[in-house]
Amino acid sequence: MNRRAISIYIGYLLGVEGVFMLPALAIAAYHNELPSVKGFAIAMAALLVSAALLIRQKRPTDAGVYAREGFVTVSLGWILISLFGALPFFISGAIPSFLDCWFETVSGFTTTGSSILTDVEVLPRSMLYWRSFTHWLGGMGVLVFMLAVVPLAKGSGETFHLLRAESPGPSVDKLAPTMRHSARILYSIYIALTLLQIALLLLGGMPLFDSVLNTFGTAGTGGFSIKNASIGAYDSAYLQAVIGVFMALFGVNFSIYYLLLLKQFRAAFRNEELRLYVGIILLTTAVIAVDILPQYADAGAGKAVLDSFFQVSSVMTTTGYATANFDKWPQLSRFLLVMLMIIGASAGSTGGGFKVSRLLILWKAVKNQMQTMLRPRAIRSIQMDGKPLGEGVVRGTYAFTAVYAVICLTSMLVLTLDDHSMETTVTAVLACLNNIGPGLDMVGPAGNFSFFSPLSKIVLSFDMLLGRLEIFPMLLLCMPSVWRRA
Amino acid sequence: MNRRAISIYIGYLLGVEGVFMLPALAIAAYHNELPSVKGFAIAMAALLVSAALLIRQKRPTDAGVYAREGFVTVSLGWILISLFGALPFFISGAIPSFLDCWFETVSGFTTTGSSILTDVEVLPRSMLYWRSFTHWLGGMGVLVFMLAVVPLAKGSGETFHLLRAESPGPSVDKLAPTMRHSARILYSIYIALTLLQIALLLLGGMPLFDSVLNTFGTAGTGGFSIKNASIGAYDSAYLQAVIGVFMALFGVNFSIYYLLLLKQFRAAFRNEELRLYVGIILLTTAVIAVDILPQYADAGAGKAVLDSFFQVSSVMTTTGYATANFDKWPQLSRFLLVMLMIIGASAGSTGGGFKVSRLLILWKAVKNQMQTMLRPRAIRSIQMDGKPLGEGVVRGTYAFTAVYAVICLTSMLVLTLDDHSMETTVTAVLACLNNIGPGLDMVGPAGNFSFFSPLSKIVLSFDMLLGRLEIFPMLLLCMPSVWRRA
Repeated sequence: MNRRAISIYIGYLLGVEGVFMLPALAIAAYHNELPSVKGFAIAMAALLVSAALLIRQKRPTDAGVYAREGFVTVSLGWILISLFGALPFFISGAIPSFLDCWFETVSGFTTTGSSILTDVEVLPRSMLYWRSFTHWLGGMGVLVFMLAVVPLAKGSGETFHLLRAESPGPSVDKLAPTMRHSARILYSIYIALTLLQIALLLLGGMPLFDSVLNTFGTAGTGGFSIKNASIGAYDSAYLQAVIGVFMALFGVNFSIYYLLLLKQFRAAFRNEELRLYVGIILLTTAVIAVDILPQYADAGAGKAVLDSFFQVSSVMTTTGYATANFDKWPQLSRFLLVMLMIIGASAGSTGGGFKVSRLLILWKAVKNQMQTMLRPRAIRSIQMDGKPLGEGVVRGTYAFTAVYAVICLTSMLVLTLDDHSMETTVTAVLACLNNIGPGLDMVGPAGNFSFFSPLSKIVLSFDMLLGRLEIFPMLLLCMPSVWRRA
Repeated sequence: MNRRAISIYIGYLLGVEGVFMLPALAIAAYHNELPSVKGFAIAMAALLVSAALLIRQKRPTDAGVYAREGFVTVSLGWILISLFGALPFFISGAIPSFLDCWFETVSGFTTTGSSILTDVEVLPRSMLYWRSFTHWLGGMGVLVFMLAVVPLAKGSGETFHLLRAESPGPSVDKLAPTMRHSARILYSIYIALTLLQIALLLLGGMPLFDSVLNTFGTAGTGGFSIKNASIGAYDSAYLQAVIGVFMALFGVNFSIYYLLLLKQFRAAFRNEELRLYVGIILLTTAVIAVDILPQYADAGAGKAVLDSFFQVSSVMTTTGYATANFDKWPQLSRFLLVMLMIIGASAGSTGGGFKVSRLLILWKAVKNQMQTMLRPRAIRSIQMDGKPLGEGVVRGTYAFTAVYAVICLTSMLVLTLDDHSMETTVTAVLACLNNIGPGLDMVGPAGNFSFFSPLSKIVLSFDMLLGRLEIFPMLLLCMPSVWRRA
């Protein structure tokens, strides 16, 4: 294994994180939050010193960077940025237990949004900023950002392995000939959409600080709110609609936006994943709106549709914001939301979950399999967006599905040791593994994750990492052959 | 499609069912149960007349019998024997609603054991006999029985398609050169084990009628009991242990018993599925025994181990008998049982569920996939019991997993319309799709399925058929291309 290359990549990663703590430090200083100033200053120093030590090694030229190195860099990198990112919370005393600091930071970077805080509003403003900012950075990817700004590799091959390991979905679209160019395109679109949402929220009268932080949570499809009542605290249909629509927008594959920029409208709107994604959102919004209507006798049908859409968009994109306590909705609506939790957003978006494109691939593969059962000798290829899907992608999707199910079930099994209700246990795992945030019952929109045992918190935090990195990079860390020298 | 061949096979199938109603009719006459005599007589007449009409057609020689015909025969055949099998319950008035008669009969033939009866003990003895006998016949398979006794096809090819569509597991072991010979071996072992269990139960002092009927339920891994307290009604550790052990025995791949008969002990005990199956039973028995120990302070550790083993064996083999209300056990034990519900018994046994061998195949395939991710160019084959697994079996297993999950979730979604607890909804579907019987909460060992809406009962009954026939045969019925003439 090319340990030097991994060290250097992780060094740059920590450096990027250190630089990104600067605004949080400035906010702490501006608001005179002295413990936070200390927290951010020490964490930044630790990050920058570690980065310098790791990067100081000479650039290796002998050994190459392959899939293995990509997986290890991404998994170790994410664990390390979460550990360092937890330091400000801990040093400042904003969150007393380090395990809780780790949980909250992992939840931030993985854009989960599950919180161990029982009262968010008492947190210093600089901590609220950092907490929400981890969503924004984790959503599009820290490594993707690093690839966009650090002039690192010459060849496209090795950066491809890094990008692939961090990008969600069954396969990676190459937007541009070089990975660096691709990463820049992604971040440009991301920043543009972020600025647009902030502007629209400001127009609706939301304070600047709230607009920025709520947009961070939306863009990363994270879901940390700065209010205990989540987005429900903003009693404005306009603001809720803006956030609802932008959650849905950030759950779209970013290569669609690139196609739109290139004016390839036909290709964009014919995209099969996009059509299914929009179809699911519209259909479930309609079904849930009808199902909850009896509970909205006073508030009216318009409010029922808005609440249904907001919750559907929030859960399907794995954001996790709430404007209604969907835990109190009828069983049909609750179960539909659980299904959306599993399906998740589109590949190549900032959202988590199983991904709509995997659902499509499974559907096509199973149809193909059934045709093969009837006529074993006829061979048909599986097509997606008019192109044949490689056998490797199909097999990879199948394997992902199997491992996903096993990790779900074993995590749930460990959580049953806490002896909470089955609904709490099951949806806590689904909410963390799919990077959503809230689940049902005790972890519903009105609850939080503080009551879990340390063991459960550790399992759930690794579920978040497994979910964000799409399982395999983290899992490969456990294979002995990864650590053997080539 | 070769409609003539399908008609003839189904004709024989109905004929077999008609003949098997004779003992029930005799019992009804012996006990002077007049409505039951009428019920069985009319049903038998209907079966035999239909059989005669269907078989009267000349044996077709022009068109062959392929996979398509196999799937259609099995699916339609199972639907028809369930419809006819429900007639005695309905005509005699033992179960007033025809939908409930259908549910109970499907539950019997598919060896599920979920009941809509709130009081089993008021049922006439002949009805109890028929109800339990459907388990015995459905367990090893009606078509397998027909192939064993009816001198039907010359070639092995066409009967293979029938046997394959009815046999559980990812692939079919050919025990003997001809399918007819294989079917006879399977039924001989089945009958021998059945007689042995009846003898052991008689030795323990169980009345003859109870011994036979409880053995039917054990052998088919069905779970219909003739007592409201299930096997818990027999307050004898010996009787409970015998049934517990025999449930486990009937959950073993029958080709293992054939290997033992051939004195190939080494091959039998090295079988990977058998080892995993036994390992899972022993491990979960131990964990659950420890977990429930605090509840057994009075009854003692021995009783805790026996109850743990009995419930594990019952759920894992998808039988569904109970000697304890496991719905009241701690969450860890309850969730472990839910996991066993999904895993199910061995391929080629009378048990249902996902099957241990599929779990093994998935495990190996995923490991293989991870190695491929690290070294894309190295190609490794997947081995099972020392032989390479065909790519088709792996792909078939993956596809099965995906469809299984989708059917689970959509069935649950329909059941949420009844607005029962999530636990009731989820475990009712798992209990039916995996042919187990009881689930948790309202469908726990102390509950039953009578309270579901007609729509839910229809969904659950088709879940049982989907589960017993391993999904694809039933699913293929819905494909238009199956019905097109070749």
